[in-house]
Amino acid sequence: MLKNDLLLKASLGKDVERAPVWLMRQAGRVLPEYRATRAKAKNFIEFVKTPELAAEVTIQPVDILGVDAAIIFSDILVIPEAMGLPYEMIEAKGPFFPTTIKTKNDIDKLKIAQVEDLDYVIKAIQLTKKELNNRVPLIGFAGAPFTILAYMIEGSGSKTFSKAKQFLYTEPKLAHLLLQKITNSTINYLKGQVANGADIIQLFDSWAGVLSEKMFYEFSLKYMAQIAEEIGAHVPVTIFAKDAHYAIEKISQTKCNNIGLDWTINPLLAKKLSNGKTLQGNADPCLLYADDETIVNETQAMLLAFGKQNYICNLGHGLYPDIEKSKVKLFVDTVKAFTY
Amino acid sequence: MLKNDLLLKASLGKDVERAPVWLMRQAGRVLPEYRATRAKAKNFIEFVKTPELAAEVTIQPVDILGVDAAIIFSDILVIPEAMGLPYEMIEAKGPFFPTTIKTKNDIDKLKIAQVEDLDYVIKAIQLTKKELNNRVPLIGFAGAPFTILAYMIEGSGSKTFSKAKQFLYTEPKLAHLLLQKITNSTINYLKGQVANGADIIQLFDSWAGVLSEKMFYEFSLKYMAQIAEEIGAHVPVTIFAKDAHYAIEKISQTKCNNIGLDWTINPLLAKKLSNGKTLQGNADPCLLYADDETIVNETQAMLLAFGKQNYICNLGHGLYPDIEKSKVKLFVDTVKAFTY
Repeated sequence: MLKNDLLLKASLGKDVERAPVWLMRQAGRVLPEYRATRAKAKNFIEFVKTPELAAEVTIQPVDILGVDAAIIFSDILVIPEAMGLPYEMIEAKGPFFPTTIKTKNDIDKLKIAQVEDLDYVIKAIQLTKKELNNRVPLIGFAGAPFTILAYMIEGSGSKTFSKAKQFLYTEPKLAHLLLQKITNSTINYLKGQVANGADIIQLFDSWAGVLSEKMFYEFSLKYMAQIAEEIGAHVPVTIFAKDAHYAIEKISQTKCNNIGLDWTINPLLAKKLSNGKTLQGNADPCLLYADDETIVNETQAMLLAFGKQNYICNLGHGLYPDIEKSKVKLFVDTVKAFTY
Repeated sequence: MLKNDLLLKASLGKDVERAPVWLMRQAGRVLPEYRATRAKAKNFIEFVKTPELAAEVTIQPVDILGVDAAIIFSDILVIPEAMGLPYEMIEAKGPFFPTTIKTKNDIDKLKIAQVEDLDYVIKAIQLTKKELNNRVPLIGFAGAPFTILAYMIEGSGSKTFSKAKQFLYTEPKLAHLLLQKITNSTINYLKGQVANGADIIQLFDSWAGVLSEKMFYEFSLKYMAQIAEEIGAHVPVTIFAKDAHYAIEKISQTKCNNIGLDWTINPLLAKKLSNGKTLQGNADPCLLYADDETIVNETQAMLLAFGKQNYICNLGHGLYPDIEKSKVKLFVDTVKAFTY
């Protein structure tokens, strides 16, 4: 049914003629076309909530960059909002929650999000699928429960997330209560994404790196594993726990299909630890500031290190907004032209 | 000569009756006594440049917390300033450089810092040594050349240090030119610290974690190795490369004595990779938000995991300023009371 099913084949460990390639934040400010669409909305949150605009920017990188997958344009913080904790997006600063979670009562007041609470994402997925017309798979996504908890407690981004971590240390039972509510909400949300056409799901644990190994397993991986179990029964699931360098083997023991890697991870070591699961990543986003020759050489070295099978080519984190579009295109073209 | 030489013995791999303990940022806002001394200076930079005040806060944690070492109170950014690139410290935001490094001409204009350019630190060391009266060793320190370059180019703190990394990718030769100038300045500075009484030296590569493995070896470790070679001939040297989880073995191959570990590192794995060098770390700073029982249990588990020899007990990063003093004291007391 899909004309280009490289990403699905790679996720299922099937033979592919070459590695599929897409980029985190490919639907983003790196494209002038995105910035033009973005300008049609009053603010970021209105943008996220307008399915026509979200679908438009979701498809742009497929047309413009020639990537092997689209990823639905949205934000991980739609989940707290659907649970009753709205956020604002402050220009050049990032997300901000006017109210944060402090007590059991705060957690009790949160609702379990239902797919109806996120109908604008579902509509964006439906529109995107129609427009994509099966050219490439559509990736759905959600934040990992720990990363969502981190924002709900901290109230904004943070270098250390020390308030969120303080909560884990001082109120572990409440933390688990909140994580389970987030997990249940996320499962509802992702089931809705899949039912409406998402071909594969990625979990973003953007702040895994602030946790120790022991706390990552207890407060983060446990809940991602639940989601992988539920959603993996329907479509492939990717777990991307940024900076959880120690966790590759444990992640591979969940029901996920793919393991996302940041750029500090050695590809050969990751292959050894991943029990044959597919790996995704992991070029340094800053590589795309380099001259063309360096980009081509480093990308080819990465393709060789990971090998053709069980691999999805990507960056090790999202595209930075000031990267030139031509450099992103060169990265994609290098992957597509590579002969093993 | 030193009444308590546990830290030096541990650094040299000698037998100790128990692991020495100190904390990064022990001379800091966590102590009300520090805040009282800090209030005597107009601003942070004047504080750093007043030897009497610097010596006073350096000694406070020895008296108040009972740690096994003092670390001279200063800032890693005194080196750029001594090279001709002054910085400001903006309350609640961090360091800011009004002028940054962009071109070869900017690098050529920088001077190699001499110890005379940093006489206020030398005076603080002399005063501290006198006051300490050999009770415990005094740790001197400097920023790693890469971390210093990162600030000189980025101009401030940053989540990604993408400007600094862009410079490494686009101007590698200039980057090496700058790194060598910083390295030479740092060696002069550290030799001055040692000549005036520093008993051990620590290099802080606070931003190592933004680099890929390959770039860390090329742009960071290479220069820390030069410093370890020069300074290690006189006193023990500790290399702390935060978030460079992949580098333990390569760091152990330099002339350093001790390897600092952040809290994401598994102690048993680090022991395997460190070629018998002494390890330092690595409790999660947020552990000190926990209840007393958790602090004691987790600290004891860490002591057991690292073992008594070749180990210096510390956090995996600096103390967070809102930690209660009593919790820090409990951490120190737990280490000192532990029986193996």
